[in-house]
This record gives sequence, structure tokens and C-alpha cells, in this order.
Amino acid sequence: MKKNAIYAQSGGVTAVINASACGVITTCRDSEKIEVLYAAQNGILGILNENLIDTSFETKEDIALLRYTPGGAFGSCRYKLKNLEQNRKEYERLIEVFSAYNIGYFFYNGGNDSADTCLKVSLIAQELNYPINAIHIPKTIDNDLVVTDNCPGYGSVAKYVATSILEAGFDLNSMFATSTKVFILEVMGRNAGWIVASCGLASKEIGQPPHIILFPEIQFDLKRFLKKVLDTVSKYGYCVIAVSEGIKIQESDIIDNLRGVDAFGHRQLGGISATLANIISNELKLKCHFAIADYLQRSARHLASRTDIDQAYYLGAVAVKLALNKHNAIMPYIKRISQEPYLWEIDYVHLNEVANKEKFLPRDFIDEEGFHITKKCREYIEPLIRGEDYPLYVNGLPHYVKLKNQLVVKKLFEFSSVV
Amino acid sequence: MKKNAIYAQSGGVTAVINASACGVITTCRDSEKIEVLYAAQNGILGILNENLIDTSFETKEDIALLRYTPGGAFGSCRYKLKNLEQNRKEYERLIEVFSAYNIGYFFYNGGNDSADTCLKVSLIAQELNYPINAIHIPKTIDNDLVVTDNCPGYGSVAKYVATSILEAGFDLNSMFATSTKVFILEVMGRNAGWIVASCGLASKEIGQPPHIILFPEIQFDLKRFLKKVLDTVSKYGYCVIAVSEGIKIQESDIIDNLRGVDAFGHRQLGGISATLANIISNELKLKCHFAIADYLQRSARHLASRTDIDQAYYLGAVAVKLALNKHNAIMPYIKRISQEPYLWEIDYVHLNEVANKEKFLPRDFIDEEGFHITKKCREYIEPLIRGEDYPLYVNGLPHYVKLKNQLVVKKLFEFSSVV
Repeated sequence: MKKNAIYAQSGGVTAVINASACGVITTCRDSEKIEVLYAAQNGILGILNENLIDTSFETKEDIALLRYTPGGAFGSCRYKLKNLEQNRKEYERLIEVFSAYNIGYFFYNGGNDSADTCLKVSLIAQELNYPINAIHIPKTIDNDLVVTDNCPGYGSVAKYVATSILEAGFDLNSMFATSTKVFILEVMGRNAGWIVASCGLASKEIGQPPHIILFPEIQFDLKRFLKKVLDTVSKYGYCVIAVSEGIKIQESDIIDNLRGVDAFGHRQLGGISATLANIISNELKLKCHFAIADYLQRSARHLASRTDIDQAYYLGAVAVKLALNKHNAIMPYIKRISQEPYLWEIDYVHLNEVANKEKFLPRDFIDEEGFHITKKCREYIEPLIRGEDYPLYVNGLPHYVKLKNQLVVKKLFEFSSVV
Repeated sequence: MKKNAIYAQSGGVTAVINASACGVITTCRDSEKIEVLYAAQNGILGILNENLIDTSFETKEDIALLRYTPGGAFGSCRYKLKNLEQNRKEYERLIEVFSAYNIGYFFYNGGNDSADTCLKVSLIAQELNYPINAIHIPKTIDNDLVVTDNCPGYGSVAKYVATSILEAGFDLNSMFATSTKVFILEVMGRNAGWIVASCGLASKEIGQPPHIILFPEIQFDLKRFLKKVLDTVSKYGYCVIAVSEGIKIQESDIIDNLRGVDAFGHRQLGGISATLANIISNELKLKCHFAIADYLQRSARHLASRTDIDQAYYLGAVAVKLALNKHNAIMPYIKRISQEPYLWEIDYVHLNEVANKEKFLPRDFIDEEGFHITKKCREYIEPLIRGEDYPLYVNGLPHYVKLKNQLVVKKLFEFSSVV
């Protein structure tokens, strides 16, 4: 008996989450067991609010273009379902919608939080005797999911920030004699230093930029940092720094107006790189520039890693096959089976093993001094950025697809307890 | 009789200035009239200080790779020679070095300032009866040189910022329902809005990001701006803004701690985008993110425009041919001879016509409201970003060349009056 399926994107988007969507949609279309694949508009909210997109309206060509398109094609959301005990109503609503649309397969594409949600969906479905195959498809630029060797989205961010700091290093190297001596690139990663670590790939030999990497895992020590900057400038003439947005500067190190809160108590946006640049400029009297990659790093599909794209695609495709094989409450993940040549395969794990867990940069991925990556770290990250997979360009700009996103006519009463 | 030549890079580097260097070197090597091509280390300073690189030591393969390598391969500098009257010594020193190395051809690759220096070199040489063919090769991401249709370096920055804001727009579009509503990309351009204007290429239809472009040529009006942001968010759910680092916010609009000067009077680095983000966040209570492209935009060789690369290369090549044909005190430039298909050729102009002049964005390139570009502007910029010219990648990162940069043994006494 044919069933329908739902696919939803969750949390911060990546350059390759649509490649997973492409894998899911293509595989669903090839399956005789799946009738209609719906996509939730804006993630889990689309299910709660019955905002469902009928993906059948999309052409084959547009679905193929998803592989090359950044962002989340159906909309994503930052919305974490509460505990089952705290808000049972929301979970029941999910099942109500599943039931109304004859959903037999649920694909949830996200990070830690969504792994947890996916697990809970399978639990409540079991409790309510609703048959579902709920599969979590991993995605996060933060690379902080456990079990899996790496997370789709990470390889492309890594390639982007490593390339960017490599290029900026060439710029600095040609200008430092009379101009900027210190350059800081601020990258994402609130808790885990995976992204900032990848900047280290650009420096293949000692002395090559980046000279300093600031990891959230290492306690920031202003004095040691300033000494390192000065030493680097003395030795090489300039200093290129990669900093994770998540490093913590002690309050006592920051003069009042850099505290990040204004006179009215408003939280000030500024970025850690601006703070560091100001300190370097004031304390060391060195001309300092900084760049903040922000969303550019996670949407830079033009520079995506081929390895990352392939893994994202196949995780989506395999998720569908696992669901069709009656698997439930699992996550397909990437297993590294060989380092050189780099080989990987897809295995799967129960969501109990991954939900709400976070993987930090191991201490032995960071050198003793705490300012750079080790050979071990380099060997881990490097295969993940290998390969290019360029989008088509039309008149000088990448050709990205906007889907029709045709919403279904609602069948149910409105659900009022969500945003 | 064979003569030698000197090539020097000046001012802020670009993603394609080395393509011009590649054109100069390749053409010099092909010429029977030129014996040795020296490159000045760190621009004009390399000549003053007799830090000359003998480019003969570089392999053909490495010179070919220059076309794909960002930064300035021989070092550039920010150093403007004073007036002939104020510092005649410096100009005489240049001639002294030229004479010691039997230099018959001088190629100076830079912006407005270096056009002026190049002109003065030809004047003092004439006065001192030293025969020289001094050719200025245009280069500036700012696109503000007169006479030439466009400047090498600009097309690639334009392609980079337009692609970046296009990609960030896809990110915002998928997240705004529950997360960031406003995104700001800060780009270079202190006086002229050419770079920020190119962000406008990403929005092909009304409503597509970027929704707002802030030009240095348009007086910034905070109230009008905030209203436009609010209107855009009401209409489309989110708002993507491109801002030129050069826009001026009136002091009265900025609360104390955003003024850019700290309690000790230190100049604070922060970026106009941080200021705008704070105002939007505080006044409109909208979640706001910002990215600062800084040096990434001018070193992003991975995304260079093929048109730009070709023009940079040929301007270098033609400069050598013009010098060999006894031209002096001129600049080869790009002439647009057809819009559709886009066709260009290289002509040349006397440096009197270009030195120290600056070209701003014409008013009719900006729409009436002052927040976007016009069709005319789009038609001007678009051909300049067309085409891709990817570098080779090795293990996931672009393969850029570091030259040997073998310095000659000095022959002259030290020149002490410069940095």
C-alpha cells in the first residue's frame, strides 16, 4: 500500500542542505512505495501549521538544480519542540497532520535538536500506535554531531574559510611593508572550534598564514595572545588570525566601551574580531583589518566541497531507502573507511546515540601552544574539502533555483499554540 | 640596443593584478628588445631602495600561474611620492636606479596616485635627459579611474560581492520566519559606490535581495533608511542590505558609544555595518546579522571574473608593446565598443588626462529613491562580471604560486629618505 512522506529542514541552513533535499526527492520519486512527498514550509512549523508543499509540482530540472542551490529551498526554522511532558500537544499535532496526509515516512534534516525531535516523534507515534518511519538526516556546519565522522555542510564551510584566509594571506603578504600588519577573519562556531580549525588548512608550512587560530575550546589569554601577535609580526612582518565567534574574552580585559553593551543596556552587535582589532590597534599600535564571514560562509555554494555535496546527497538518498526498509528513529551517518585514499560509506545509528550530544574539537587536534591545528587535525579535515562542484553561471552569477513551493489546501483546524 | 625594464605594483592589491604582471612578464620575455625585466619589491619603494627582483629566475610555469594568483606577487605599497617641488630627491633617485640598471621601460601598475607618479617620472626623466618609456597600467577595485570604461580588479570584486549577497539572500529567505530578518553586507568603496552598486546585480526582479543599497554618493538619511527597512520587512518578510564602507552617518544619529571613538579618544574600528545593525536592532527590534567582506573581496581569486582577468592580462601585455613602440607617459585603457554582444578593445591615453582624477557613480546609475541601481547601471556592470576562470585546486584548496623573488645584489649607496 502506497504511503506519503514528509521532508523538513531544520535550524541554520548550509550550502549543501538542498543537496540532501535533492537526494530525498529524487529517491522518493524513484520509489513505487511513496505516492506524494510533501515538504514542510519552514521546517517543523510547516507541519504544525499544516503548511505543506506538494513537491510533485516541481520539475525534474528544478529538483536537479537543488544540488547547486544554497539556503533551504522549503524554508527552515529555529524552533525547538519542548519536552514531551511539557508540550505533548505539539507532538500529538504532528501525528494528527501525519495521519491526515497518510504520512508513512518522515525525514528530518537538521542538527542535534532535530535529532532529538525526530526521536520524540517516533516515540509518540509508537505510543499512539501510528506507524511511521522517522529518519533524521544529519546537517550542520558546526560539525558537532556525534557518531558520524563529519556532518554535511561542514566540508563546504571549511573549504570556504580556508580558501578565504589563504587568499587574504596573499593580500597581506604583499601589503604589510607599508600598510596592514594584522588581519583577522571571524568565523562561526559558538561552542566547537571545527570551523576555525579548518582555517588552519591554508597554512601548509610554519610561517604561512593563518599564524594564529583562536579556538573556543582554549581559554583565551589576552597577554599570551598579544605576545604571539607581536612575535609573529616581528618574525614574518605580518600576522593573520582566524577567530571563532565563540571565544570568551574576560570582562576585565575589555575596556568599557568594548563590553558589548551600550549605555542603555542594549546588547551591542560587533563581533569578537572588532574587539580584538581594537585591542591590537590600541595596545600594539599595529594597523589591523578584520573580516566577518557571517552568513557568507554557510551559503557560499559557489565554493562548495564536492565531497560534502556528495555526502549530503547520498545521506538524503539513503535515508529514503532506510525508511522504505522499515527503519525508524535512526540517522544515516558517514563512516570513514580509509584515510588515503579517502573512502567513506554510509551506515546508520539509533537516534538515542546522537540526540542532544555535542562533539568538540579533541585536544590533540590543537597544538600544545593552543594557537594552531595539529597534523592529526589536518588529516581529518582535509579530505572533507576536496573536490569542486561548480554551479552553472548565467551572465556572471550562479544560477540557483527558486522552487514553486505550491502549498496544499489545508484540511485541518488551525493549530494555535505555535509562532 | 637591448634595454632592461622595471615593473612595479602600487596601492591596494586585487584578485587580478598578477594577471597584469603575467601579461607584462610574458610579453617582455617574448621581446628581443628587452634583456632583463626587474620587478620592484614592494612597489616604488623597491626602486628607491634598490630592492629589485630579477624575474628571469622565475619558471615559465610559475609565471603562467600568476594569472591565477591573488595579491601582489612582488609586493605592493601604499607610498605616494611627494610633489616634484617638495621632494625632487626621490624622483632623481628613481632615475639614478634606472640608469644603474640600464632601464629603458618602466611599467607602473596602480590607481590614480600611481598614474600621477608615472607621469612625474616621465617628466623628470625628460628634464634630466634620461630616455624612458613610462607606462601606467590601470588597476583598482574602486573602478574610479577616468577615461577607461572600467578598471581591472573591479569586475572580480563585483562578481564576488554580487554572488555573496545573492547567496546570503537565499540563506535569509529560508530563515526569516523564525530567525534573522535583516542582513547587511559591508563592502569597500570609501568615496565611490561602484562596488556596492554591483551588489545590485543579484536582484534581477523587484523584491529580490538586496532590497536596499547604500551608496556613498547619496546623503544617508537615518529616518528614511529605517522606514525603508521596515517597509521591506513588512512586504517581503526580510531585508537584505548592501552598504559601502564610505557612507557617512551624521554624528547626531549615532548614540555615544557608536561614535567610533572610545573614552580615551582611540579610534575604534567597527565598520558601518555594525553601527547600522545596532541601530536596526535597537530601534526596530529586528534580529540583524552583518558580514564584512574586507580583504576577502579583493583577494577572492577563486571567483574572479573571466572578463576582468582577460582585460588585466592584455593591459599588461599591451603596455609592453606600447613601450616598445616608444610611447611614454601614457596609460592603456579599456574601451567598450559594443554592449550586446559585449566587446572591448584597448586604446591608450596620455597620463595628463587621468592622473589624480576620480570617477564617481553617475546619478543616473542610482534610482530616484536612492536605494538601488538603475537598468543603465546594471547594463554597465554586468558584462564585467561575466565568465569564470577557475584556479587549479590541490587537495581542496586553490593552487597559488609564490615566486622565488630573487633580489639582485645592490650596486648603489643606500637611499635614506624613505621608509
